[in-house]
Amino acid sequence: MDASVDEILAGKYPAKDHAKRVAARIQELGHGQSGIVYLEAQKTRMIEDNDEAMPFRQRRNFFYLSGCPLPDSYLTYDIERDELTLYIPPIDSDSVIWSGLPLSADEALKLYDVDAVRSTADVNASLAHYCSAKGGKKVFAIPDQVAENITFLPFQETDFNVLRQAVEECRVVKDSYEIALLRRANEISAKAHTAVFKAAGSAQNERELEAVFIATCMTHGCREQSYHPIFAAGTSAATLHYQKNDEDFVDRATGAKKLNLLVDAGGEYRNYCADITRVVPLSGKFSPESRQIYDIVLEMQTSSLAMIKSGVAWEDVHSNAHRVAIRGLLGLGILRGTEQELFDKGISVAFFPHGLGHYLGMDTHDTGGNPNYEDKDPKFRYLRLRGNLALGGVVTVEPGIYFCQFIIKPYLNSSDLSKYIDAGVLERYWNVGGVRIEDNVVVTDGGYDNLTTTPKLPEEIEKLVQGK
Amino acid sequence: MDASVDEILAGKYPAKDHAKRVAARIQELGHGQSGIVYLEAQKTRMIEDNDEAMPFRQRRNFFYLSGCPLPDSYLTYDIERDELTLYIPPIDSDSVIWSGLPLSADEALKLYDVDAVRSTADVNASLAHYCSAKGGKKVFAIPDQVAENITFLPFQETDFNVLRQAVEECRVVKDSYEIALLRRANEISAKAHTAVFKAAGSAQNERELEAVFIATCMTHGCREQSYHPIFAAGTSAATLHYQKNDEDFVDRATGAKKLNLLVDAGGEYRNYCADITRVVPLSGKFSPESRQIYDIVLEMQTSSLAMIKSGVAWEDVHSNAHRVAIRGLLGLGILRGTEQELFDKGISVAFFPHGLGHYLGMDTHDTGGNPNYEDKDPKFRYLRLRGNLALGGVVTVEPGIYFCQFIIKPYLNSSDLSKYIDAGVLERYWNVGGVRIEDNVVVTDGGYDNLTTTPKLPEEIEKLVQGK
Repeated sequence: MDASVDEILAGKYPAKDHAKRVAARIQELGHGQSGIVYLEAQKTRMIEDNDEAMPFRQRRNFFYLSGCPLPDSYLTYDIERDELTLYIPPIDSDSVIWSGLPLSADEALKLYDVDAVRSTADVNASLAHYCSAKGGKKVFAIPDQVAENITFLPFQETDFNVLRQAVEECRVVKDSYEIALLRRANEISAKAHTAVFKAAGSAQNERELEAVFIATCMTHGCREQSYHPIFAAGTSAATLHYQKNDEDFVDRATGAKKLNLLVDAGGEYRNYCADITRVVPLSGKFSPESRQIYDIVLEMQTSSLAMIKSGVAWEDVHSNAHRVAIRGLLGLGILRGTEQELFDKGISVAFFPHGLGHYLGMDTHDTGGNPNYEDKDPKFRYLRLRGNLALGGVVTVEPGIYFCQFIIKPYLNSSDLSKYIDAGVLERYWNVGGVRIEDNVVVTDGGYDNLTTTPKLPEEIEKLVQGK
Repeated sequence: MDASVDEILAGKYPAKDHAKRVAARIQELGHGQSGIVYLEAQKTRMIEDNDEAMPFRQRRNFFYLSGCPLPDSYLTYDIERDELTLYIPPIDSDSVIWSGLPLSADEALKLYDVDAVRSTADVNASLAHYCSAKGGKKVFAIPDQVAENITFLPFQETDFNVLRQAVEECRVVKDSYEIALLRRANEISAKAHTAVFKAAGSAQNERELEAVFIATCMTHGCREQSYHPIFAAGTSAATLHYQKNDEDFVDRATGAKKLNLLVDAGGEYRNYCADITRVVPLSGKFSPESRQIYDIVLEMQTSSLAMIKSGVAWEDVHSNAHRVAIRGLLGLGILRGTEQELFDKGISVAFFPHGLGHYLGMDTHDTGGNPNYEDKDPKFRYLRLRGNLALGGVVTVEPGIYFCQFIIKPYLNSSDLSKYIDAGVLERYWNVGGVRIEDNVVVTDGGYDNLTTTPKLPEEIEKLVQGK
């Protein structure tokens, strides 16, 4: 793994810088130059009808200003004094025999980039103190994320409008520490994808390979997955968010082995996500049709990457990917007509129904994308990122071509649209299922920095499956 | 794996039988002989501030009467007509491209032991129909588990009092299908524990072995864990619910390899839980002190198992385990005094602070245990099962001895109690950490049936760690 990443991550998560950036953004948005930023960690929540806690996932906006993964914590940031305080749960002696001693305030101060650490028992007193010190300040908070026992009464003004927006806008542009976290998540996920390639030749079913992926991630430090992994063999790969992951590789009905496995999976490293898709030929060799589609999708990605730099309209990159898909499918004889007509009629949406990519960070579909799911142009309806690419933003680049009966059949049955698709040629491609190739890149001034180190060339993947 | 288990599980989950049992129990509890039992599945819930769904866990009481793992479903059971109806979500064409086609009503009828399958759009109409057919019947439901769009208005009476109690009492006694599910969960978990034994000699840290456990479970069909696994090396094993699972086996401070790893983990098979604990000598050989403690805990378990049969008071079995612990610790010289005095003073609670076991089923701490966490006798405070063992109940038998500074030090510092513990002898045992041995057994008429097939004898475990 990258040693310079180790070096960066040996330092603290830059919570204080993030707090300053958020305060500056609040000011830019016209909500004043002073006040207290108030955030709460996710609470420990019990499983319904059960005495165990639900799987814990830290609130991202809280983590951004604290770097603290602990449940049931709080933070305040006094903008004027530039004072960031973390509040962590005190010792509960009844729970020590079950859970061990909690982190002490001194330990927390060493771990996190904050100015002070206090007990959660002090939150209200601290709020009152901040307030009375200068009298009647403003508190910034997020609606529905203020515990019932917290009082903002001492404050003259409670601003529930700007904080979420300010934090989520700041989160779009990643600093070097965040890039290092995303790079590490990608490095570990590359090990896991590679382990899947190596195991794919002998595995019997999807769940075996999902197990290989998750175990490899855990072993190398990604305890959680960024999102529910997709391990989709054969035609299941045409279901975009397939999550069953329990089908055999040999089709029970026909006895035939499925051609390809689509793997869309990434580990989460200290709350930062990798989101990577690869397609694996289960026999160790792509079938001719699979390889044709793979090559088109790879060209869609290569061509998209070549356009990426800060300020570029993501819609343009997405549209270009559609044009590459159209030319490729015309070349195979699956589509008929001119590139422009097929583009204008949106025919490629039948094969590439989703968006080219989205921002990535602590959420898989990270903040700041401003999608428009009501867009009348079906090409853009599922594009989760709209507008110009931000310098320092991290974006997924994930073109795909799928052979989904449910999506394509209406085109074939349409008197207007059926002429654009050659059903006879198409027949040879249904078993390809779907191909998606997805990398994670940092948007730079003149281009991009690809964080994803997972093998991508078809020959590389074939060799790994063959055990070479 | 057990072929007879395969045979049983090839049939349907006995939802209809469970519905009848619940209806009979409602009647026994004096709430009438007719009415509609109404239950809802767990809803699809989104992760906060995110566009992905939370990990899904089916509501156990719903599953018990349906065998259906689908979110957002409903069921009604007309007691008088003996008619069990399942309502499943209809096709939502917007979601098909993402999630594929949902289960159809016909497919569901083949899979689940219900009389009819309808769309969730029909629930209110169906309730109104049941009601008007005979006029003003009663509906039985669980408080806070009725969706806002559901109306009980047509019913003369809504009984929110008895249903939860009736279902949860029925769940205590497992039928042969449920036993088969628990046996399968145990078989798969045995593979996973054995894989951990084999990997323990070369592994570097806790998380690597947690990864081996989870991957082995997933590969063999347990996609979920019954509970958050505990992989606790060295003194961490004395923290009963340790869940960090991220420590190295070599102590950074001393450079010494930790002695033992306590593994408390079990796979969940079709919503039924295994709950198994083993202790692994990381060197491949138990240290003399570790072996002494292991032998005492094994004797605590053997002696407890010998007492188990239906009708036995669990407090008696638990007390007996304490007596065995006392005799063992007296033998080692850790305790001083007479067995009776040590028992009466509760001194063994310092080493065995938790309960001997709990009911097991769809919840790890299953229904019907009736614990009394306010019990003034510290021996019984954490005993999660009270009273007489039910015929057909499944119970964990999990004695343990721990060397937890936080628990034992107050005894050593007490002027009354310090005389019972030899601090000098004790010094040699802190590094043992803790030993717990846990099996899952069915309570039978004259004894028990042990579902747990994970190796347990110290020599067996040593051989597996050594790769023999």
